[in-house]
Amino acid sequence: MKSTVARRMDGFSPFYVMELLQRAKELEAEGKEIIHMEVGEPDFPTPAGIIDAAMKHIQTGNVKYTAAAGLPELRAEISQFYLKNYKVKLAPERIFITPGASGAFLLALEISLNKGEEILMADPCYPCNHNFVRLMEAQTKFINVGADTEYQLTSELIKQHWSDKTKGVLIASPSNPTGTLITDEELQLSIEQVNSLGGSFYSDEIYHGLVYGKKARSALEFSDDVFVINSFSKYFAMTGWRIGWVIVPEAFVNAAERFSQTVFISTATHSQYAALAAFSTNNITELESRKHEFEKRRDFLYENLIRLGFKISVKPEGAFYIYADCSRFTNDSFQFAKDLLEQQGVAVTPGKDFGNNNSNCHIRFAYTASVAKIALGIERLEKFICQ
Amino acid sequence: MKSTVARRMDGFSPFYVMELLQRAKELEAEGKEIIHMEVGEPDFPTPAGIIDAAMKHIQTGNVKYTAAAGLPELRAEISQFYLKNYKVKLAPERIFITPGASGAFLLALEISLNKGEEILMADPCYPCNHNFVRLMEAQTKFINVGADTEYQLTSELIKQHWSDKTKGVLIASPSNPTGTLITDEELQLSIEQVNSLGGSFYSDEIYHGLVYGKKARSALEFSDDVFVINSFSKYFAMTGWRIGWVIVPEAFVNAAERFSQTVFISTATHSQYAALAAFSTNNITELESRKHEFEKRRDFLYENLIRLGFKISVKPEGAFYIYADCSRFTNDSFQFAKDLLEQQGVAVTPGKDFGNNNSNCHIRFAYTASVAKIALGIERLEKFICQ
Repeated sequence: MKSTVARRMDGFSPFYVMELLQRAKELEAEGKEIIHMEVGEPDFPTPAGIIDAAMKHIQTGNVKYTAAAGLPELRAEISQFYLKNYKVKLAPERIFITPGASGAFLLALEISLNKGEEILMADPCYPCNHNFVRLMEAQTKFINVGADTEYQLTSELIKQHWSDKTKGVLIASPSNPTGTLITDEELQLSIEQVNSLGGSFYSDEIYHGLVYGKKARSALEFSDDVFVINSFSKYFAMTGWRIGWVIVPEAFVNAAERFSQTVFISTATHSQYAALAAFSTNNITELESRKHEFEKRRDFLYENLIRLGFKISVKPEGAFYIYADCSRFTNDSFQFAKDLLEQQGVAVTPGKDFGNNNSNCHIRFAYTASVAKIALGIERLEKFICQ
Repeated sequence: MKSTVARRMDGFSPFYVMELLQRAKELEAEGKEIIHMEVGEPDFPTPAGIIDAAMKHIQTGNVKYTAAAGLPELRAEISQFYLKNYKVKLAPERIFITPGASGAFLLALEISLNKGEEILMADPCYPCNHNFVRLMEAQTKFINVGADTEYQLTSELIKQHWSDKTKGVLIASPSNPTGTLITDEELQLSIEQVNSLGGSFYSDEIYHGLVYGKKARSALEFSDDVFVINSFSKYFAMTGWRIGWVIVPEAFVNAAERFSQTVFISTATHSQYAALAAFSTNNITELESRKHEFEKRRDFLYENLIRLGFKISVKPEGAFYIYADCSRFTNDSFQFAKDLLEQQGVAVTPGKDFGNNNSNCHIRFAYTASVAKIALGIERLEKFICQ
């Protein structure tokens, strides 16, 4: 026997956009100005109230381990947040603080998914998801979705694709890369479907704060028997702080506790103290005004991409992404992205990072840059496609 | 099929000391002064230079994702550290920054260990280790060790216990809970043994900075084909910052990169900027003086435990633990620990948290408290056993 890479790493995909990021850095080092529309993190700094709370804690020098599941006061805050935002009563014991939503996904799947089982997911979707499933030596069954279902799974699709091997369903709403939401009705029906089939329902709600002109409903409004993944990264602008949370069904609390003790010991303490300030009225006011800024950017980018000839079948209502069909210009969106970066200094993410569903004809644009920068990006994009 | 806890969580042990910690908190809430000799983290605050570096970074508000493997400048610093400390030339590409040593263990085992394979470990050892192995649905083969081998595995023991299922060997030196080191010769022979058997060698070096009157050698001094786990938690007093690192063999770099991208995205950015200040001359001077303080505590605690009738077959040379044989007083050290806490307000960790090798006759004392506090603990312990 040789010391070799474990089987679970087979088919564990890297991100194609990394190659573009690397090249973008080189171009920047040469003095070129790059317009970044590939980045999945807010361009806004972490709000001042959160920064202050972190500094106050760090200054004590007392940055020690917390309880594995997280600071009790932070779990209580999050419980209150669900009551206020979703009218859901949630025992803090079911809330586990994790190193980002990544830690939340890891925890949820490790404690619930066995080797050989299968998870249903929409294609396109966030590329890490199937890697996590792969980590358990389980399989992802991708279901092609399109504009007719808002790029989301439906209870009908779930029923149709369910097999003996299926363990559960992962929904992300708003979706990355499409920014589209599942309808309230379909969310409810899908959860009921999965529960009636005895499966696990995983609801990725990390973009919930960033929904424009409507309100996203939490899976917890329809059932207690769901895993909900959320994060301070996106709406709260805390990406680098690496803090998120997962809510587990009552029957999984003990396993989640044991998992956290071993695998996390605890989540970064200063990030937890910082997050305690995230729910204050002042901070939420600040974040809501940022949300309006994101909405303006979405509208600006959407209109301009349509004008240039991109096809966007469903106007995205959340997150900070537009997944645009670029088939009028290319059927190799990775090459298109490389050329666009090289010739015009605009960085975008190729569709192939999000699956195989006609992904070579798609590009994800992130509006994590100011309207002025997006305008410059559009100007360059126009030059590129009109050359 | 029902939505149930995954099989890999079977036999995933909780920590018995948690029950004691919970009770200690209750007693403290009642106004009792508890002497903590159970805690596996330095009582010292994070050094001022590290705090300052963190604050400077956080103040910018720019706490964004870093590269998945970590800040290039931090990986370069760690590479320099190996050159200076161990005379080992190490490509920064082999160094991955992780959320604590926990993240390092997770990465190392996920990318190298398959279901059904077996890892050899000493009993007693750190309780999380076999949980990590269990996470891969692999098995731990515990090998009872004692004073004759400094509570460490040897090349002879490895050879003797190696089977078709064995994938590799995990060594921790200094060991938690015994504080004992593997000899340089045995470290070299063990690595050679494992390499010649085609297995993986995992070296837990998280207590390397805390070695008294001698110097611990890194597994990397003997082979490039090893996994080395280290952390900023113990020597650098950064527990709550959740930052560590793992060094992987060249052949695992690509898998480690893909794993990090999905499972960590990155390690907390402010912790990484803080850690950049850890290797400065001023900071190391400060940490070395703390090390001398730990050494004094070790001597004080060691002498007093011996005086009281505990048996300590090998004087520990590292970490901040003494694993004492309490068979003169009890053959149920968990009950002993509970009673000691209840009656005298002294918290210690029962042997059963570290394995099954005569663990009911052992207690782990941590000297993560001042000499004055340890003296008070000893006074109370004396009352307890003489009552």
